[in-house]
Amino acid sequence: MNTIGTLLKLTTAGESHGPALVGILDGIPAGHTVDTERIALEMQRRRPGSSIGSTRREPDEVRILSGLLNNVTLGTPIAFIIDNTDARSADYNNMQQLWRPGHADFTYQAKYGLRDVRGGGRSSARETAVRVAAGAIALQILEKHGITISAYTHSIGTVALDDKYTFAPDDDVYANPVRCPHHATAERMETLLRQARSEGDTLGGTVSCIVRGVPTGLGEPLYGKLQSTLASAMMSINAARGFEFGDGFDAASMYGSQSIDAFRLTSDGRVGFTANHNGGILGGISTGADITMRVAFKPIATMMRPLPSLGPDGSEAVLQPKGRHDVSAVPRAVPVVRAMAALCVLDAIMIAKARKL
Amino acid sequence: MNTIGTLLKLTTAGESHGPALVGILDGIPAGHTVDTERIALEMQRRRPGSSIGSTRREPDEVRILSGLLNNVTLGTPIAFIIDNTDARSADYNNMQQLWRPGHADFTYQAKYGLRDVRGGGRSSARETAVRVAAGAIALQILEKHGITISAYTHSIGTVALDDKYTFAPDDDVYANPVRCPHHATAERMETLLRQARSEGDTLGGTVSCIVRGVPTGLGEPLYGKLQSTLASAMMSINAARGFEFGDGFDAASMYGSQSIDAFRLTSDGRVGFTANHNGGILGGISTGADITMRVAFKPIATMMRPLPSLGPDGSEAVLQPKGRHDVSAVPRAVPVVRAMAALCVLDAIMIAKARKL
Amino acid sequence: MNTIGTLLKLTTAGESHGPALVGILDGIPAGHTVDTERIALEMQRRRPGSSIGSTRREPDEVRILSGLLNNVTLGTPIAFIIDNTDARSADYNNMQQLWRPGHADFTYQAKYGLRDVRGGGRSSARETAVRVAAGAIALQILEKHGITISAYTHSIGTVALDDKYTFAPDDDVYANPVRCPHHATAERMETLLRQARSEGDTLGGTVSCIVRGVPTGLGEPLYGKLQSTLASAMMSINAARGFEFGDGFDAASMYGSQSIDAFRLTSDGRVGFTANHNGGILGGISTGADITMRVAFKPIATMMRPLPSLGPDGSEAVLQPKGRHDVSAVPRAVPVVRAMAALCVLDAIMIAKARKL
Amino acid sequence: MNTIGTLLKLTTAGESHGPALVGILDGIPAGHTVDTERIALEMQRRRPGSSIGSTRREPDEVRILSGLLNNVTLGTPIAFIIDNTDARSADYNNMQQLWRPGHADFTYQAKYGLRDVRGGGRSSARETAVRVAAGAIALQILEKHGITISAYTHSIGTVALDDKYTFAPDDDVYANPVRCPHHATAERMETLLRQARSEGDTLGGTVSCIVRGVPTGLGEPLYGKLQSTLASAMMSINAARGFEFGDGFDAASMYGSQSIDAFRLTSDGRVGFTANHNGGILGGISTGADITMRVAFKPIATMMRPLPSLGPDGSEAVLQPKGRHDVSAVPRAVPVVRAMAALCVLDAIMIAKARKL
Repeated sequence: MNTIGTLLKLTTAGESHGPALVGILDGIPAGHTVDTERIALEMQRRRPGSSIGSTRREPDEVRILSGLLNNVTLGTPIAFIIDNTDARSADYNNMQQLWRPGHADFTYQAKYGLRDVRGGGRSSARETAVRVAAGAIALQILEKHGITISAYTHSIGTVALDDKYTFAPDDDVYANPVRCPHHATAERMETLLRQARSEGDTLGGTVSCIVRGVPTGLGEPLYGKLQSTLASAMMSINAARGFEFGDGFDAASMYGSQSIDAFRLTSDGRVGFTANHNGGILGGISTGADITMRVAFKPIATMMRPLPSLGPDGSEAVLQPKGRHDVSAVPRAVPVVRAMAALCVLDAIMIAKARKL
Repeated sequence: MNTIGTLLKLTTAGESHGPALVGILDGIPAGHTVDTERIALEMQRRRPGSSIGSTRREPDEVRILSGLLNNVTLGTPIAFIIDNTDARSADYNNMQQLWRPGHADFTYQAKYGLRDVRGGGRSSARETAVRVAAGAIALQILEKHGITISAYTHSIGTVALDDKYTFAPDDDVYANPVRCPHHATAERMETLLRQARSEGDTLGGTVSCIVRGVPTGLGEPLYGKLQSTLASAMMSINAARGFEFGDGFDAASMYGSQSIDAFRLTSDGRVGFTANHNGGILGGISTGADITMRVAFKPIATMMRPLPSLGPDGSEAVLQPKGRHDVSAVPRAVPVVRAMAALCVLDAIMIAKARKL
Repeated sequence: MNTIGTLLKLTTAGESHGPALVGILDGIPAGHTVDTERIALEMQRRRPGSSIGSTRREPDEVRILSGLLNNVTLGTPIAFIIDNTDARSADYNNMQQLWRPGHADFTYQAKYGLRDVRGGGRSSARETAVRVAAGAIALQILEKHGITISAYTHSIGTVALDDKYTFAPDDDVYANPVRCPHHATAERMETLLRQARSEGDTLGGTVSCIVRGVPTGLGEPLYGKLQSTLASAMMSINAARGFEFGDGFDAASMYGSQSIDAFRLTSDGRVGFTANHNGGILGGISTGADITMRVAFKPIATMMRPLPSLGPDGSEAVLQPKGRHDVSAVPRAVPVVRAMAALCVLDAIMIAKARKL
Repeated sequence: MNTIGTLLKLTTAGESHGPALVGILDGIPAGHTVDTERIALEMQRRRPGSSIGSTRREPDEVRILSGLLNNVTLGTPIAFIIDNTDARSADYNNMQQLWRPGHADFTYQAKYGLRDVRGGGRSSARETAVRVAAGAIALQILEKHGITISAYTHSIGTVALDDKYTFAPDDDVYANPVRCPHHATAERMETLLRQARSEGDTLGGTVSCIVRGVPTGLGEPLYGKLQSTLASAMMSINAARGFEFGDGFDAASMYGSQSIDAFRLTSDGRVGFTANHNGGILGGISTGADITMRVAFKPIATMMRPLPSLGPDGSEAVLQPKGRHDVSAVPRAVPVVRAMAALCVLDAIMIAKARKL
């Protein structure tokens, strides 16, 4: 089940330390010019080392093998490859017989009877590179429809953006390595990350995402509700532990009278809302207001400290991690969340269009 | 898109005040005896009036039209009907020209160009009756495989179960109308609900769900991860605003060193864990530990107080709700969450089995 | 797997002698008026007794339970029920322990471990009533787009329409009980059917189908080619043994120079063809020419003569069919073929539309 | 829609003269050793030049990029690439403005608004190389389950195998370039092909396929009937115009009494049949008898003779084909038919297994 989407389908393949990652993005409408520089930019934003806390360096060049002619989409599937050029498998040798706590080593072994121990194999977050590349194509087509998507770090550990903070379209997410658009908060996050690294520890956090310019009518009740496809997509990202939209979990402790999105007529005579507690979705269908959501990520499980573990034979041992590991998954998850949102929204636009007959 | 599932598919149809709700549950394996009393019991638990805060009373009898012979599953699709016998459409007359804030009235109108105004039509939570009936069948087959699923109210408004509370298999969820297994907390929730009702207000809350006896190996990475299908299913429930599993959003503010599920050998020589921060899922695959998750619900949008609204012609008006409305969606959502979990887990078992060749 | 379609999905349920057949047609666009008389007309055309060779008589009334408001589609799933009012199960008693040759009795038993012996249960052609009802809705929406679909009996046994015969839009398929639009041929078919019945024998045949007014661009290469979805749909009809489009199997014995569809400009300046060997489809995509196809049906396996058989315990016995059985499946398959074509084409229109962004 | 399959999914991408073809085969069970020599052998059998009538020569090396570790399947998707090393695009220059009759040039232009004119782009039969590679993996796993699949040329033009011919397991399909296992018939086919080539003409034909060792119970009624998935798969092959199984179209002209597959007990006490008119499938489910089917292919549309055509601007012109073109698609379609059968049957095994709970 390495395919996501209904009419716009992304299929991915590839192990972390195999020859390459492969993606096939099927369903992109024909006739759209794709700016490959934009793909490269998104890849750079996801790359280890460009955000705080990681060291693996790969150019992550996306080689497109099909679906484009002179950079124009043909309507046929777009296949692309990202080579794994910097795989240092030797670093992982001492883990080969041991399952890392909090990783998929044990479950892959249990499910498949064998696993690629090198860098987590298929379960590695390296796979998200494919998502970012595909999302970068979807984002370009969405922009032509007036839709923009932003994602940014909302919190790292206990350091979070103030509730009063509102993301503005020109806020620069990528000005700092933690991907937090509020300068002072970003500095506090960086301090916290450095402290955790010095202690061999890791941190969780949250990523916020906002979709602007969405038309009304996206989402297919009852089981293709927009929040269902978004939740499914976001929960497929490595280390994701929660998804919410609108007021999300905060709504659970609220009164109805505190969370009213009353209707109002906008100055140009359209239907608008006095607030956006429902995050731009009602009954599974977009209202036209901004879609707001948040994804929670757990701390990265691999820490630079010895951990008790087991091997396939049940033998106990101490795992002493080496290799390259991020302190937090959050900064690098930012472009991934954005990419997944782009794929979901473009798919929803196509499906909604199909039903207007 | 009124179908959910991969090999086990539930398709539902029906408007709130139409003649009936219809469900087709396809993919249930052959040869299993279905206890229809168990279905009736689950239906009763979801029924308005059996939990606190609602008044619509319908027998919600599930009439099975296919797929069973002498109560044994044939392997063919199980179709069933739940008649809408107590639809009092007249109560909704004054809303017919107005969109209720926080409901799907506007988005259905925007997407489809028309809508069934009676009781919310297709967007009504009445549809969840079909899910509960289908889930009651899945639950019975899961039990034969040693899998049990429990759901219960974790919080209503600001009243929540203590963090130290742990659900025990024999805790009785249905002993009280708020569906909270902790007696003292349940009483506080009831008090809060009564207060809100007296003020014409409503309340949000959360539902916890725990799946016990799960084998390792369920879930299909990367886009059919167990948490992805669960999240998608839960987010399709009316008023759901968030989903989390394991430590969920709490994980986001934690250090890695605070959230270690170290391996240990169980007394019978199997692989176990010293904790369950990851909620029974690693890399999208079940670990064999209990699957724990939580769903957040917003307050019900319809309150017994006047609300400003708009009609399809853009005219402003004041909406004065009548009819029957719950104070909180949470107690009645409890069996729905359980049902959706049952459908997802049974589907996952079937898919995982398919790949063992 | 009782669902067919991508965006327009039909899910069916029901055993031949259970309480009812059930269909859910999901994805029909909103805002279309449905003429229920048209549904009743198609049901009558499929009904036993209305064509030659069968005696089971049921009103086959289609009760719509959802998805319509004042006969206008809501965009929500259309659920409907067809009661089994004339199930005479007693007729089938002597077959209960025996597998009928050429029927699904043995394979259902082998696959599911049990089966509903009454009237073939789920494997009965009675299920096609649901398809005809759903198709009758799709046909109405297609007509609004200028698309008409005709199906007719091309051959019964060795009696076939002349190769020079071309179906004209106003040819009346339903003027005679064999559903053959050519009067003289129809009479020969009727004679053949009567002769076979008198001998307790049965006959195969073929049904032709033509879709007119199709726009270019329907069909999704490479695995959603229009002929693939049509073939899959047609081969799901009971007793179907072959599918072809355009020149079909005849093309296999031809030279390329005999089968050229050269381009030509039509009088109104559009692209046309000098012939239609390719049956309106090239590369899996509709050309705009008529889509022509044919489905082969085997003779009905149940004959009014004793047949050697086996029972589940391996005991040999002689099967003496009673009950009601058609002499040929072909006349009643005509509206079924038409219905399946309608569902496929409407689905293809919706998908093609989605990709025009 | 470049994905086929339910649990075993093949996704393909690539234009004929782009850098490479790409395939992702997802769902292959873990722990199976893959013999890459077997893949190479199948690729060689499909290759132009190895059968009669074509000249394009490419090594068609399959480079596997994921899903295998030391040639053992990981349970993760198997991605592979086949480079287009011998693309002589210049040969196609004169066709760039003209649509070739009988090809997808016009329909791709009409659907997508643009097309890759080089070698037919995505619509080229070159894509079938990916299918053969994927099928070669599926075939190996099927063999471990005792299932073998053979495909062979049944007819070329008017030269067909005698009705009395029965394929024997040790008949050598690949002993001659027309892929016909009967020596004398093969020689007549070769003669016919040479004659057609000398006249600049092309020929249609049929491919037979037989699946041996199939267990009972494969296929998912009603819309996942085994013949439906097979028909859909076969009709997706370039130039396919018809599909039949068992007696197929011949059944249409038969009496029921001529086509009885009576039950019998085999010498080892299992259920067998006195004949196999139903081609190993009853009610959409495999009987355990050999699955027999046939696919009809039209003559290749591109002939070495001038043809009237049109360009996108509606201008008329004469098309003078150059480049490399097969005289008949049939010999090279043989391994493709076999590959598609393998993918369908393995998928069906997995689905059937899932439902045995």
